[in-house]
Amino acid sequence: MGSGSWGTAVGKVLADGGNDVVMWARREQVAEEIRSRHTNDRYLPEVPLPEQMSGTSDPAEALEGASHVVLGVPAQSLGENMRTWASLLPKGAGYISLAKGVETASLRRASQIIAEDGAVDPSRIGVLSGPNLAKEIAEGQFAATVIASENAQLAEELQGIFATSYLRPYTNNDVVGCEIAGASKNVIALVCGMAAGLGMGYNTSATLITRGLAEITRLGIALGAEQATFSGLAGIGDLVATCSSSLSRNRRFGEQLGMGRTMDEAQEATNGQVAEGVKSCTSIRALSQEAGVEMPLTEAAHLVCHEGIPVSQLVQALMGRTKKSE
Amino acid sequence: MGSGSWGTAVGKVLADGGNDVVMWARREQVAEEIRSRHTNDRYLPEVPLPEQMSGTSDPAEALEGASHVVLGVPAQSLGENMRTWASLLPKGAGYISLAKGVETASLRRASQIIAEDGAVDPSRIGVLSGPNLAKEIAEGQFAATVIASENAQLAEELQGIFATSYLRPYTNNDVVGCEIAGASKNVIALVCGMAAGLGMGYNTSATLITRGLAEITRLGIALGAEQATFSGLAGIGDLVATCSSSLSRNRRFGEQLGMGRTMDEAQEATNGQVAEGVKSCTSIRALSQEAGVEMPLTEAAHLVCHEGIPVSQLVQALMGRTKKSE
Repeated sequence: MGSGSWGTAVGKVLADGGNDVVMWARREQVAEEIRSRHTNDRYLPEVPLPEQMSGTSDPAEALEGASHVVLGVPAQSLGENMRTWASLLPKGAGYISLAKGVETASLRRASQIIAEDGAVDPSRIGVLSGPNLAKEIAEGQFAATVIASENAQLAEELQGIFATSYLRPYTNNDVVGCEIAGASKNVIALVCGMAAGLGMGYNTSATLITRGLAEITRLGIALGAEQATFSGLAGIGDLVATCSSSLSRNRRFGEQLGMGRTMDEAQEATNGQVAEGVKSCTSIRALSQEAGVEMPLTEAAHLVCHEGIPVSQLVQALMGRTKKSE
Repeated sequence: MGSGSWGTAVGKVLADGGNDVVMWARREQVAEEIRSRHTNDRYLPEVPLPEQMSGTSDPAEALEGASHVVLGVPAQSLGENMRTWASLLPKGAGYISLAKGVETASLRRASQIIAEDGAVDPSRIGVLSGPNLAKEIAEGQFAATVIASENAQLAEELQGIFATSYLRPYTNNDVVGCEIAGASKNVIALVCGMAAGLGMGYNTSATLITRGLAEITRLGIALGAEQATFSGLAGIGDLVATCSSSLSRNRRFGEQLGMGRTMDEAQEATNGQVAEGVKSCTSIRALSQEAGVEMPLTEAAHLVCHEGIPVSQLVQALMGRTKKSE
C-alpha cells in the first residue's frame, strides 16, 4: 500500500522472493505504469520491475484476500489511510510498516497508528527498518534489515517472506526502538545535510552521527526501547546509511538549507517532496520534551525548519564551547 | 615526534593553540621543509603551516626540555623509536600517543609500548583519538576528539593544550577502549574499501560499519575497556569518519584490493604507504583469538591481505545465509 520509492523497492523484493504482489498507488497513472510497463519512473527510475508485480489504484482490489499488507505510505498520512481502509483490511493478515516517522498531531509511531486507526491486533503488526536505501535495494545490491514485532512468530514468518538472495532480514522484538530509530535518523540526516551544505566534511558528519545516535538512544530508552537496537542495523546502520548517502532525501534537503536556500527552494531541489525529517523533527522534539530527554540536534533541526533560525547561527550553539568529559 | 599527515596536522593544532612546537621528522628534507618553507608537501599538501612551528631531524633537539611529547610515529615502529630515544625522553613530561595500531610482534597497544620501551610512567601517558581526518583538521574545519588517560589530571591538562577554536577535546579515562577502537577501525575501513571496490554502495558500507563496531566493542570489553567508549567519538565517530571518507588511506587501500589489484598495486596507488589496517588486521585478529572473541570482518581482512584469498570469495562468507535474530 503505497508506491513511493521505498514501497516500490520493497514490492520488488517481495516479488523477487516469489510472492504475489499487488502494488496500490494513490494515482492511477502510477498504478497503470507498474501494471503495464513494469516501471515506476517517478519514484524508482531506471529499475525494471518484475512482471508478476501488479498495480492498482483501488485499495479494495489490493487488500482483498491479502495474507500480508505492507504499509508504505508516509507517516503523516498513514492514520487517514488506515481509517479510510479500515473496513477493507483483511482480518488475521500480517501488517508490516515501512513508515519512518512520528505523526505530528498525535505523536504516535506508525505501529500505534496501524493498531488504533486500522483496528489491527498489535500481535499482527511488524515493522521493517535498516540500512536500506531504496535505489540500492532495487538494484539488487546485498543488504541486511531488521523486522521487529512483539510477536516473535510473526517476526519469523515475515523474515521468511522478505528474505531474498540480496536482502537478509534479522528478527527483533523491539518495535519501539526500531520505530524511534527509523523516525529520528531522518532528523539527524537533515542536520548532517545542513553541515555539508555549510561546507563541513567527514569529521563533522561523523561527530553529528555520533551525537545523533546518543540523543536518539536516550529518547528510545526513555520510551521503553532497548539499547541494543540502537547499536544494531536499525540504529547505527540505518543512521549511517541515511546520513552518508547523497541518495538520502533528508540529507539532500538539509544540504540545500545549509547552502542558504529557503524551505521552498529546498523542496523544489528534492523532487518537490518535503523530507520526512522536516515533519519528524517537530514530533520527535515534542516526544523528547514529554520524556524529559535532551535532543540538541533535533531541537536545531526544528529551529531551522520551523522557526526561521539560519543554519549558520546554529553551528556555534551545537558545537558548544565548554571543555568537558565525553 | 613524527611528521606524517596526522603528526603534522596535530603539530599545527598545537601551534595554532599558542604552543611552541618543534616537529621531528625522520628525514632531514622534511624537517628542513617544515622549518624553512612552512609546508609538508608530501604528507599534508596545500596546507600552510604556522611560522612558529619548527622542524628538526635530530630527536635530541626536538625532545630537549619539552613539557609534552606527542608521538606520531606508526604503531609498528613506535617501539624501536622509543628504545632509541629512551635516554633523551624528558622526565616528568606528558606523553601523548597518536598511533592507531597494535604492534604485530608483541600485540602491545601504543601506550604499553611507550611505557615499556620508553620507560615512561603510565600516569604520564595519554592517547588522542576521534573522528579526525588529518586533512580536514589541517584546514581548520571544526572537529571534536577524545583524550584518554588513566590520570584524570593529565587528561585535563592535555585537553587545555589541544583545545583550539576548531578542535574540541573531550576527556576520557578509558585508554584501552580508545586504543582498541583506534587500531580496529583501520581494519574495518579496509573491509569497507574492499566492498566499495566490488561496487557495493551505502547500505553495505553501513552494514559493515554496524557489524564492525559490534566486533570491535566485543574485543574491547574482553580486554577491559568500557562499552561507552565505543558508542562515542573515539568509537563510532572515528569508525564512521574513516570508513566513509575517500580521504582515508585504509579505505582507499581496501578499494584497490576490491577492484582486484594486488597488494603491491594497492600500495602503489596509495602513495607508496602500506595502510596501517593491513598490519593491524593480523595483530587485532591475534588479540581476538587470545581473548576468545569472534571478529569475522577482521578475519576477512587478514585472509585477503595475508593469505591470498580473493575479496570476491569473502562476500558470501561475510554475509552468511542462515536466518537469525539480530
